Amino acid sequence: VTLPVLGLAEIRAVVTPRLIRDAVRDALIAHAEGRTQVPPPMHLDFPDARGDCHVKAGHVLGSPHFTVKVASGFYRNPSRGLASNNGVLLVLDATTGLPVAVLADEGWLTAWRTAAAGALITDALTPPEVREVGVLGTGLQARLQVEWLHALRPLAQVRIWGRHPEAAESLSAELRRAGIDAHAGSLAQAAGAPCVITATAATTALADASAFHSAVHVTAVGADMPGKNELPVALFGAAAVIATDDHVQCLDHGDFGNAVRAGATTADADTSVGAVLRDGVGRSGLSIADLTGIGAADAAVASAVLSAVP
Amino acid sequence: VTLPVLGLAEIRAVVTPRLIRDAVRDALIAHAEGRTQVPPPMHLDFPDARGDCHVKAGHVLGSPHFTVKVASGFYRNPSRGLASNNGVLLVLDATTGLPVAVLADEGWLTAWRTAAAGALITDALTPPEVREVGVLGTGLQARLQVEWLHALRPLAQVRIWGRHPEAAESLSAELRRAGIDAHAGSLAQAAGAPCVITATAATTALADASAFHSAVHVTAVGADMPGKNELPVALFGAAAVIATDDHVQCLDHGDFGNAVRAGATTADADTSVGAVLRDGVGRSGLSIADLTGIGAADAAVASAVLSAVP
Repeated sequence: VTLPVLGLAEIRAVVTPRLIRDAVRDALIAHAEGRTQVPPPMHLDFPDARGDCHVKAGHVLGSPHFTVKVASGFYRNPSRGLASNNGVLLVLDATTGLPVAVLADEGWLTAWRTAAAGALITDALTPPEVREVGVLGTGLQARLQVEWLHALRPLAQVRIWGRHPEAAESLSAELRRAGIDAHAGSLAQAAGAPCVITATAATTALADASAFHSAVHVTAVGADMPGKNELPVALFGAAAVIATDDHVQCLDHGDFGNAVRAGATTADADTSVGAVLRDGVGRSGLSIADLTGIGAADAAVASAVLSAVP
Repeated sequence: VTLPVLGLAEIRAVVTPRLIRDAVRDALIAHAEGRTQVPPPMHLDFPDARGDCHVKAGHVLGSPHFTVKVASGFYRNPSRGLASNNGVLLVLDATTGLPVAVLADEGWLTAWRTAAAGALITDALTPPEVREVGVLGTGLQARLQVEWLHALRPLAQVRIWGRHPEAAESLSAELRRAGIDAHAGSLAQAAGAPCVITATAATTALADASAFHSAVHVTAVGADMPGKNELPVALFGAAAVIATDDHVQCLDHGDFGNAVRAGATTADADTSVGAVLRDGVGRSGLSIADLTGIGAADAAVASAVLSAVP
């Protein structure tokens, strides 16, 4: 009757970026090919605690496991000495429905799979010679997006902008210690890079479309629930390629959906991230990747972790 | 970093029917008063394994916990020596979002809270002098509905019908050993009782409305996901009181919804189970209770279990 609980230390001991990246890549491609089951996420709000929570379930067809994941963000936690974000992932057997394990990953698997998805699609949609990246955001996900992309293509110049300049300085210093040429910069400098990554909890566009004047590719990972918005809708009107990790989710609560509702693009203008990862895409102007996070990636990552545990 | 897992034995050691019943009653009333948060459930299907799974989340406002529950039914399990139904309940802190405990209850908390909700509303809507009950269904939930109702009002004559007569005989014998005057009967005998409870996985009405000719109250607990149907739609047209545990869920996948879509009643014809439990209802003809199971009841039961654990 004992359901094993793997804590973060045990998970960290077996997880490698390659393990996560391969699992996420496979899941995104499976999702693009209709070989996944991903019900619409559930959201709960805790306004008194400045908290929100979403629940995502997923199954890659043919996989032995499916997962139900709870991810929370409670923004008063830091004042209690706790991390804002947390999470638990429940792994179940897809043949019997029995619970197999609990991954008490404190939200790290979500952070890593988001980093993996972002790095994979940014790398796939950014011309190989581009090494300059602008980053809007200074949190954990901003750091991971840079680090995981750097692992795929060494970056030459990273400009970090955040609402709090000291946070941008601090993240830049941290990245430099990791051997990445990163410096804090203005919003104009960061958004003006040829490759831009947004990883914020913004609820209105971070900059006008004109600020992205030199962009060949933009990846947005922050819009994970209704009400969030990072990119200006006009940018979607200018894009030659719009890649979404899940068409329905991105329409519902991604930046793509914001742009469609504003009439800047059409609901059928997107292609799937998985198809881009599988087939590549002929370059012709600006590309945008809108990531909302899919349950099938959680399921694939959980299976990979379980298969790696001794 | 250790997340406590309570197994079924530990849960059984602290759970009493009164504990569950009080928690469920409070949750149903809170839900009727808008003091809960219950997102639409998620469903997953595993056709190759004849399995389905639903995920329910819930929070009673002001409670220290919220829950995310996975309940599964995998109908090939018995051939492997496993129970068809299983479940896990994740309890989280409503102030910090942190996971508090995992209740690896093997689906029993769901079974008990369903039994409690059914017994409470059946007792509330059945005139006190009625002691004869007809039961359609022979599974665990059929047994629990009878036992938990018997604890509220001793039953004098219980007629059990099932598709498999030997299952009805077996359940009747089991109930008699528990001191309840139960016997297997025909569909006409069971449906013809003054108080009828349906607890099946049926996908079409179990009998015509005329079969319920003597009913003053009917409780249906089987329709827990889209595609299920126990009661004939015409019965709703004849009902003076229709009580639903959740208006939206019952419209979506309860027998009430089936009746509304068929035009036998209107979408505003129901009252909430919680309001009936709080205020009672003036009797005037047939009453029907349609229960789909609410996440807020799971949350209340989980909180009650945790507060009872030493």
